[in-house]
Amino acid sequence: MHLKGHQLIGQESFAATGNPVFAVNPATGQRIEPGYGTCGQEEVDRAAELAWSVFDRYRETSSACRAEFLEAIADQIEAIGDVLIERAMEETGLPRARLEGERGRTCGQLRLFARVIRAGEWLDVRIDPELPDRSPLPRSDLRQRRIALGPVAVFGASNFPLAFSVAGGDTASALAAGCPVIVKAHSAHPGTSELVGRAVQKAVADCELPSGVFSLLYGAGNELGQALVTHPRIQAVGFTGSRSGGTALMKAANNRPQPIPVYAEMSSINPVVLMPAALEEGAEALGKAFVASLNMGAGQFCTNPGLILTIKGAALDRFKAAAAEDIRESAPQTMLTQGICSAYGAGLMQLRETGKVEEVAASKLDSDSHSPCHSTLFAVSATDFISDERLHAEVFGSCSLIIECDEVTQLQDVLEHLEGQLTATVHMIESDYSAVEGLLPTLERKAGRILANAWPTGVEVCDAMVHGGPWPATSDSRSTSVGTAAIHRFLRPVCYQGIPQTLLPDALRDGNPLEVSRLIDGKRE
Amino acid sequence: MHLKGHQLIGQESFAATGNPVFAVNPATGQRIEPGYGTCGQEEVDRAAELAWSVFDRYRETSSACRAEFLEAIADQIEAIGDVLIERAMEETGLPRARLEGERGRTCGQLRLFARVIRAGEWLDVRIDPELPDRSPLPRSDLRQRRIALGPVAVFGASNFPLAFSVAGGDTASALAAGCPVIVKAHSAHPGTSELVGRAVQKAVADCELPSGVFSLLYGAGNELGQALVTHPRIQAVGFTGSRSGGTALMKAANNRPQPIPVYAEMSSINPVVLMPAALEEGAEALGKAFVASLNMGAGQFCTNPGLILTIKGAALDRFKAAAAEDIRESAPQTMLTQGICSAYGAGLMQLRETGKVEEVAASKLDSDSHSPCHSTLFAVSATDFISDERLHAEVFGSCSLIIECDEVTQLQDVLEHLEGQLTATVHMIESDYSAVEGLLPTLERKAGRILANAWPTGVEVCDAMVHGGPWPATSDSRSTSVGTAAIHRFLRPVCYQGIPQTLLPDALRDGNPLEVSRLIDGKRE
Repeated sequence: MHLKGHQLIGQESFAATGNPVFAVNPATGQRIEPGYGTCGQEEVDRAAELAWSVFDRYRETSSACRAEFLEAIADQIEAIGDVLIERAMEETGLPRARLEGERGRTCGQLRLFARVIRAGEWLDVRIDPELPDRSPLPRSDLRQRRIALGPVAVFGASNFPLAFSVAGGDTASALAAGCPVIVKAHSAHPGTSELVGRAVQKAVADCELPSGVFSLLYGAGNELGQALVTHPRIQAVGFTGSRSGGTALMKAANNRPQPIPVYAEMSSINPVVLMPAALEEGAEALGKAFVASLNMGAGQFCTNPGLILTIKGAALDRFKAAAAEDIRESAPQTMLTQGICSAYGAGLMQLRETGKVEEVAASKLDSDSHSPCHSTLFAVSATDFISDERLHAEVFGSCSLIIECDEVTQLQDVLEHLEGQLTATVHMIESDYSAVEGLLPTLERKAGRILANAWPTGVEVCDAMVHGGPWPATSDSRSTSVGTAAIHRFLRPVCYQGIPQTLLPDALRDGNPLEVSRLIDGKRE
Repeated sequence: MHLKGHQLIGQESFAATGNPVFAVNPATGQRIEPGYGTCGQEEVDRAAELAWSVFDRYRETSSACRAEFLEAIADQIEAIGDVLIERAMEETGLPRARLEGERGRTCGQLRLFARVIRAGEWLDVRIDPELPDRSPLPRSDLRQRRIALGPVAVFGASNFPLAFSVAGGDTASALAAGCPVIVKAHSAHPGTSELVGRAVQKAVADCELPSGVFSLLYGAGNELGQALVTHPRIQAVGFTGSRSGGTALMKAANNRPQPIPVYAEMSSINPVVLMPAALEEGAEALGKAFVASLNMGAGQFCTNPGLILTIKGAALDRFKAAAAEDIRESAPQTMLTQGICSAYGAGLMQLRETGKVEEVAASKLDSDSHSPCHSTLFAVSATDFISDERLHAEVFGSCSLIIECDEVTQLQDVLEHLEGQLTATVHMIESDYSAVEGLLPTLERKAGRILANAWPTGVEVCDAMVHGGPWPATSDSRSTSVGTAAIHRFLRPVCYQGIPQTLLPDALRDGNPLEVSRLIDGKRE
């Protein structure tokens, strides 16, 4: 497919006139054609008004219709073929296998949401039948379902150019809920975005949906983002990125005449606790598995294990030695952008400048990449960690910090001093269980997902997944951005009181024509 | 029971030293003893730290234990006996029958949440079993449940001194979720608050729960509210009151280092649409039923019918005549406070000053109450209404505005110009259905609850109820403050990956020991 450097508004495709943004190959530093002319307020207005004009129609399309649409998007993405993988490799520096896997996840996620819509649990149907003879007052017929919030602005993430970008998790769950979507393309992978955007655009046409269901805009800096979030037609925001980016969008959303929800997934250092008996038993294997997780995708996962919490001693020394050996042998990987690479370097510098960390190991420095990531492992004492907030900041990349505690109570103390996290992991064997029991309440308060004897990188897309967590991991700990529960971010309940059957939405009619699970008079049916 | 004018922090009871606030009998203007010394930052710190210290313990009490606690609160409130009703009558000017009904609703609501906790749907259990042989990658065992957010600050409402105050809907749903609660007593009914607060305090002791589960603080002005909402231990806020009050709390919550959710139910004018055929058929009866709803509780319901939308003509004239007759014969009722009474007068004045409204009728002016509410009905043309935002403001009290449209399309135009509402009502007969079908998408976007052939005053406490709605009806259209779904405001999901059975919470263990509804591998069991 020939890339045109175009904005997509509904079924239109055109070159915007603002200063173009170009992708840069992070491995070579070279600019990649074509340029994407940036758009301004006028294009945002057009896309938002178009989305608004089709919102009522789109949200009331049948579950089957929206399910087929999501499946058509998946089919169209697969139909792009290898061109998509090659362009994404060029733009992101990520290896083929990773991108092929990510494409599989992206399409699997779209198809999973198709199943979710068909199953109908998302409607959360509740029916309280009329009680005309109740005393002192009769009860009316009351029925509740969920409806879509309105047009959603989605911000593509740099680190998942497919699974959390144009047709990624935010878009899939918003479209599933019945919300039109306007995506702000991430400027690190504009060509990948255009390819996927055109696939969505084609699916919209093939499914004969109103064109305003999807638009894709390009812009530089924060202007486009602010214009989207403050546009009166936009009713919710999905974002994955930095803490500063997320908080800026939250601020804009809160200052609107009508505030709207922002689901920002921002920053997490994902503590991994190595319990004493588990460490004693498997120090070397744990050290090696840790480095494998740390190095995945050059550490550019939201769930990268950025902190290891454990107890000082001989077992820890063995863990450190095993990890150090693998880190030293790590080949530097190319990071997503030169900007991320510089920020990584600055983050390492800041850790060193505290004067409190010991460098356990770092990967070889020689690399012919323009944006290399040198895996780096530090260690620090628990007291130093607790007292210095600079050591709590996320360093995005293959960097981790071992916090050496004197005993399990100090471990708990460190956990209590952490901010909210996407994940918290515990490695344990049976003799550690009673101590872990004491840590669990803290872990539950701190993280959205708690793992045992695993590594946090790797997020399953399923019903039970929570990819969320207390501030600042996300802006809203009540939500998840991965897994089927993500659809609830874009829905609100509506109650129908005494509405005649013929005017009720299908989900609420007598006889349950949609065959969905319903709570009737307090009983699940 | 002898009122002491005390703050309640856990099981303590003491007089705070700040300038005391007194209740004022709104009917007589007379001050009612005792004074309630106001508290400051120190008491907020103590209550919040105490709540925090018991949070982990309280949130993991069994469903049975929390259910019994809620039932014990209901029992204790009933055990206060007539003293409660008499004090509430004196403080609020509300009549006995209304307050007895409200007590019934308050206790019924506590017992309903007891049933909700026992039933376990609130846990939203999702289990995705391990798939060790899946290729290319195995799936871990993943299980999700919901846990409590943390200590909640609840702001008592003036207009429901029992059902939305100290042990009202916010408190009941937060306690049910497993959140300790700190209530800011509404200064319009401090004695009623103390009586109910001591009932809760006794239930805490009788159920042998940790004392920090509940505190009740008194303060003047906004200081106490700001101190509560900005306290780092407070994790969510429930509020019912004015738009300015709600937005001030939202602002404070958003500006915290860790922003927290605020559930503010603020302002609604509850449009009622009279469709042409229904109006033609029942103009007089509708007029009389309308005035009965308008006058309920001196119009001091969040769901008071503040707007009538209908089509000009002879049928409307009949409606107006019938309504006018009943309004002129309405006896002025006492409003909740002198401040509310003054604000009501100012609201009427503002409507008149627009020069665009016709006064259809007003109730007799003679009243020996110090805070009388004179029911007032205005009419205005649709074009004038649309063009003047002053006509869209809520006037809290028995005031309503008829918007006279030329045709149904103009009706829809008016609806589109409205802000978000708690309710929207349509009166219709079968020949109106096809026109109503065209209005429904707008009504769904504008309101949390849509009623047919009823009046919005009167909110059923049940599974299907939505007492919520788009901004500015509430701060968060995704939630309801009445009905069993209100519990979800105070919960967040946590995912457990590969956690050994013995360390899993009961809700997630194999064999389903709590016997709750669970979504297992995508199937409801």
